[in-house]
Amino acid sequence: MLMTEIEVKVPESPSDSYKVRIGSGMLGQILSKVEDDFGSRGLFVLTDSNVANAGHLEKLLAGKSVPHFIIDPAGEVSKNISTVIAIIESMEKAFLGRDTVVVALGGGTVGDIGAFAASIFKRGVPVVQIPTTTVSQADSSIGGKSGVDSSLSKNAFGTFWHPSAVYVDVETLKTLDDRQYRAGLVESVKHALIADSEYFEFFESNIDAILSRDMEVLSKIAKKNCAIKASVVEQDPTEKNMRRMLNYGHTIGHAVESASGFDLLHGEAVAVGIIGAAIIENKMMLSDGERIGRIRSLLEKLSVPVKIPAGLDRAKLLEAIRRDKKAVQGWPNFVLLSDIGKVYCTEGQYAVKVQQQVVEQTLDELAT
Amino acid sequence: MLMTEIEVKVPESPSDSYKVRIGSGMLGQILSKVEDDFGSRGLFVLTDSNVANAGHLEKLLAGKSVPHFIIDPAGEVSKNISTVIAIIESMEKAFLGRDTVVVALGGGTVGDIGAFAASIFKRGVPVVQIPTTTVSQADSSIGGKSGVDSSLSKNAFGTFWHPSAVYVDVETLKTLDDRQYRAGLVESVKHALIADSEYFEFFESNIDAILSRDMEVLSKIAKKNCAIKASVVEQDPTEKNMRRMLNYGHTIGHAVESASGFDLLHGEAVAVGIIGAAIIENKMMLSDGERIGRIRSLLEKLSVPVKIPAGLDRAKLLEAIRRDKKAVQGWPNFVLLSDIGKVYCTEGQYAVKVQQQVVEQTLDELAT
Repeated sequence: MLMTEIEVKVPESPSDSYKVRIGSGMLGQILSKVEDDFGSRGLFVLTDSNVANAGHLEKLLAGKSVPHFIIDPAGEVSKNISTVIAIIESMEKAFLGRDTVVVALGGGTVGDIGAFAASIFKRGVPVVQIPTTTVSQADSSIGGKSGVDSSLSKNAFGTFWHPSAVYVDVETLKTLDDRQYRAGLVESVKHALIADSEYFEFFESNIDAILSRDMEVLSKIAKKNCAIKASVVEQDPTEKNMRRMLNYGHTIGHAVESASGFDLLHGEAVAVGIIGAAIIENKMMLSDGERIGRIRSLLEKLSVPVKIPAGLDRAKLLEAIRRDKKAVQGWPNFVLLSDIGKVYCTEGQYAVKVQQQVVEQTLDELAT
Repeated sequence: MLMTEIEVKVPESPSDSYKVRIGSGMLGQILSKVEDDFGSRGLFVLTDSNVANAGHLEKLLAGKSVPHFIIDPAGEVSKNISTVIAIIESMEKAFLGRDTVVVALGGGTVGDIGAFAASIFKRGVPVVQIPTTTVSQADSSIGGKSGVDSSLSKNAFGTFWHPSAVYVDVETLKTLDDRQYRAGLVESVKHALIADSEYFEFFESNIDAILSRDMEVLSKIAKKNCAIKASVVEQDPTEKNMRRMLNYGHTIGHAVESASGFDLLHGEAVAVGIIGAAIIENKMMLSDGERIGRIRSLLEKLSVPVKIPAGLDRAKLLEAIRRDKKAVQGWPNFVLLSDIGKVYCTEGQYAVKVQQQVVEQTLDELAT
């Protein structure tokens, strides 16, 4: 199995450190490797109907008879506590015990649900993540956040539960639908913006190969993403401060996503949020004024929105910003850049105050 | 507030260490102390209808307006995932966020549910335990286990989630019904048996004061229990080996509890299990033969059963022993004593193999 390994350290609990293994076309060999690594533990595979229909479940199982659960319908609509209950009862019906390893094959939703189910099954069993989308390979499979929604809010139920291993097979991206594929790359652009100007230039120079899903280029992107995310998460695993930089573009992004009634994909909304942050940077004299052009140009090549969609309710948008889960006294702090590859950090804080008036002006500019 | 403090260390994560504070009649002062200790965090109190009806909730709130949830009906019947969902949605409706502290006031069930709800609410918030029963004060409030049942098995959902503080007010024991009170003391006898022969003698000499619920004697018992449990849990927080000694009397005990259809209280079943272990010790030449008489005599003074109740299905009992959650290849290991106050430890193991035939003979003797 030809793979690159990146270790993610978990400083508060070194024995929880884990490896991200990146390769192309190794899906069929992963379960044997997991069995070798975990001894005689029982495996349980979790996936969703989209991933199963794309043939990835069959490839993963490689003829093995392993108990599994297919989340159906796929997507956010199933990311709730009822799905978790069904999964855990299905694990019990398969006579699985504390010596189980949950293997989560799929996008961010499958990963979040799988990590949460593993974290609460009989006081916690290991989870192995196999992300299959641009967004989960770049972002959600590393970092140890898990969660599902209640009837009232997103991620009302959740835990911090680090994966015991992550396998990124970039070949799974081949079957991803085009809109999902492009939107997911926005998280990679975000990583470049907050941490690595050369990586941003790589994106600019290789955009055609990226869009044609060249496996070699995608492997390079996967490695860069994992290295950046791992480095940030290692330094601040429970989001006391530095990890907030991963929230770049997400404050306005989440609000746009929510105010659109989730018509926009997460990555699409974050693209709008990144341009929003860039406008704020201009207004706060944190930019030479040229940066925003480079960023907008790259995002436009990904065919993701760079403006607030017409018809979005302005009051709803402001309300969503106020309800941001990281808000303090009703108004969130913003992550901003001082340069491409560098987050603006003042008084040791990676998320800074921005006046409401500045944000409102930014929303006006983003809508026209 | 006059209190004794015992610190429980959590070696794998020193910042999770916490204090057990033991006193008498300090219930009304605890919430102010919690507010002082946790800054401006929002409080949420969880209890059950029995505890509320006994007046303890009112005493705890002391006129403060704090959002709270009363589990109704009280007891195991409500220890399930639906109750947890209702609790978390009630926290959301009270606009509580990540800066919440859950305060669990009640017996083991309230403590288990409260710790579990706290551990999964928005990726985990602190829980403060205020145990109000002999069994929870002795046992379940320390140690960081949480859990609720699924429709198929006990504690199918659960986490390890250490309390941020424990307050033991022995005065809450005054309102406990007599059967619960006596049964709960069995866990204290177990602590004496596995760790402290002087503590066992204290029990023998002070049985009348204990049964008349003398507050001073109960404070002493609470302190001893916490010190013993804390010491064991500190040395083996996730039950790799030494912590298993807390399982003394529980292998047969759990089976008797389950085969009785939960007609027996946990402590009552553990009393039978302790005598069972003592019979095994005799058979395996681990005892002078006199020990069992002292133990039986003390348990009889507590008016808890020391025999398997008539009519209990023998096959069910054996089946329950086989299904013990700590069983390896269909047969559990047993914790045994080499002396009062000392667990038999061979080849570094605190739970040892006992032949099925020996256990079957023991069940025969326990039934007559």
